[in-house]
Amino acid sequence: MQTQTGTLYGIGAGPGDPELMTVKGLRLLQRSPIVAFPAGLGDAPGIAQQIVAPWLQPGQIQLPLEFPYVQDEARLTAAWQQAAEKVWFYLSQGQDVVFVSEGDISFYSTFTYLAQTLQAWQPGAIVQAVPGICSPMAAVAALGIPLTVRAQRLMILPALYSVTDLETALTQADVLVLMKVSSVYAQVWAILKQHGLLQQSYLVERATLPQQVIYADLSDRPSLQLPYFSILVVTVRG
Amino acid sequence: MQTQTGTLYGIGAGPGDPELMTVKGLRLLQRSPIVAFPAGLGDAPGIAQQIVAPWLQPGQIQLPLEFPYVQDEARLTAAWQQAAEKVWFYLSQGQDVVFVSEGDISFYSTFTYLAQTLQAWQPGAIVQAVPGICSPMAAVAALGIPLTVRAQRLMILPALYSVTDLETALTQADVLVLMKVSSVYAQVWAILKQHGLLQQSYLVERATLPQQVIYADLSDRPSLQLPYFSILVVTVRG
Repeated sequence: MQTQTGTLYGIGAGPGDPELMTVKGLRLLQRSPIVAFPAGLGDAPGIAQQIVAPWLQPGQIQLPLEFPYVQDEARLTAAWQQAAEKVWFYLSQGQDVVFVSEGDISFYSTFTYLAQTLQAWQPGAIVQAVPGICSPMAAVAALGIPLTVRAQRLMILPALYSVTDLETALTQADVLVLMKVSSVYAQVWAILKQHGLLQQSYLVERATLPQQVIYADLSDRPSLQLPYFSILVVTVRG
Repeated sequence: MQTQTGTLYGIGAGPGDPELMTVKGLRLLQRSPIVAFPAGLGDAPGIAQQIVAPWLQPGQIQLPLEFPYVQDEARLTAAWQQAAEKVWFYLSQGQDVVFVSEGDISFYSTFTYLAQTLQAWQPGAIVQAVPGICSPMAAVAALGIPLTVRAQRLMILPALYSVTDLETALTQADVLVLMKVSSVYAQVWAILKQHGLLQQSYLVERATLPQQVIYADLSDRPSLQLPYFSILVVTVRG
């Protein structure tokens, strides 16, 4: 007799406030026997794990999966395969697995690597994504400003971009979002200054978490010690 | 004796599935005496009103607000002022008002006009935004593809853009999202064909609603009769 396999649900846990999960995500999370998430660094719990902690049910199996912060393709591929195997262990027995990650589940999310590796290895695997609140939306809500209005064109650049990319984006976009800006902040600040955009630039650290910090004008902030989850929003044109 | 004024909460109702509201949005919605939303066209209920309908509590006052679909600045300004006055009527009596709109509350949302008009007219008004799931995230979750991975640059263009904007975006962005694409679909299709991008183009009508329709390859779809809420995603570079 063939057991029907379980479903892998990828659920966006939102930006940090546990109440910013969706009702659907929470329902699926709480009924799932297995809750997987990206493992934290060292002994620290992962971000998504912290976000969903208040919602976990007694008896749920917690499954930390390693997604190393490296560029080495061989190491990444091996880690993704291992994560897929850990998840498949339960799915193949007919158990559902929920994988949570911070923010949205399709927006620069480790879930993509897990889902794609699993589906390449086990083409019959059933995968379903449940969207979550991503940090740009959370950051502007905290700032009390719109992200976009009317016909504004929005550009979002992730952590790894060149100065040229930023210059180009400032000519093409009406609103610009830089994700995880901490490592390049001083450079970015200098370019925004050149373009006269510092007063229309906003920065949010750890949006929606208790440690949230907001800067609504960057004119006097040429250097800032920022945490990894920092986001910069520039209203290039109103 | 001075009454403390109420708070205006702007809450993103998400893309359509009522379960894609956040836990926080739902809690604030259900405890608010007044629930406002953009009025529908004619006698039809508005989209946000339909999304939250299953969650409404007995005795809640429903407050449809007019946001006319026109370009005329004078008419718009007058409508926004009237909406602000209707909301202030309750806030000034110390009652909270929840305003829901579809998608996220800061992303091309009518809430911006309401909040800005209210705060310009009544600088003491207390306004708080609660983010919601926006349609691009919902669309890719339905498609089962990531929106962005690694260092991909994302560009989002609203309904009103020129062909030049689209051409430029295809050179600058790795992933391109066109919101509300229905009125310009045939033109867009021709440009995507020129660039050899039709196989990497995806279209979702009414994401997460029961009437959701998905097209995962647009090669054979030079013309489509699309509803207003249609979204196009192009993976320009992998």
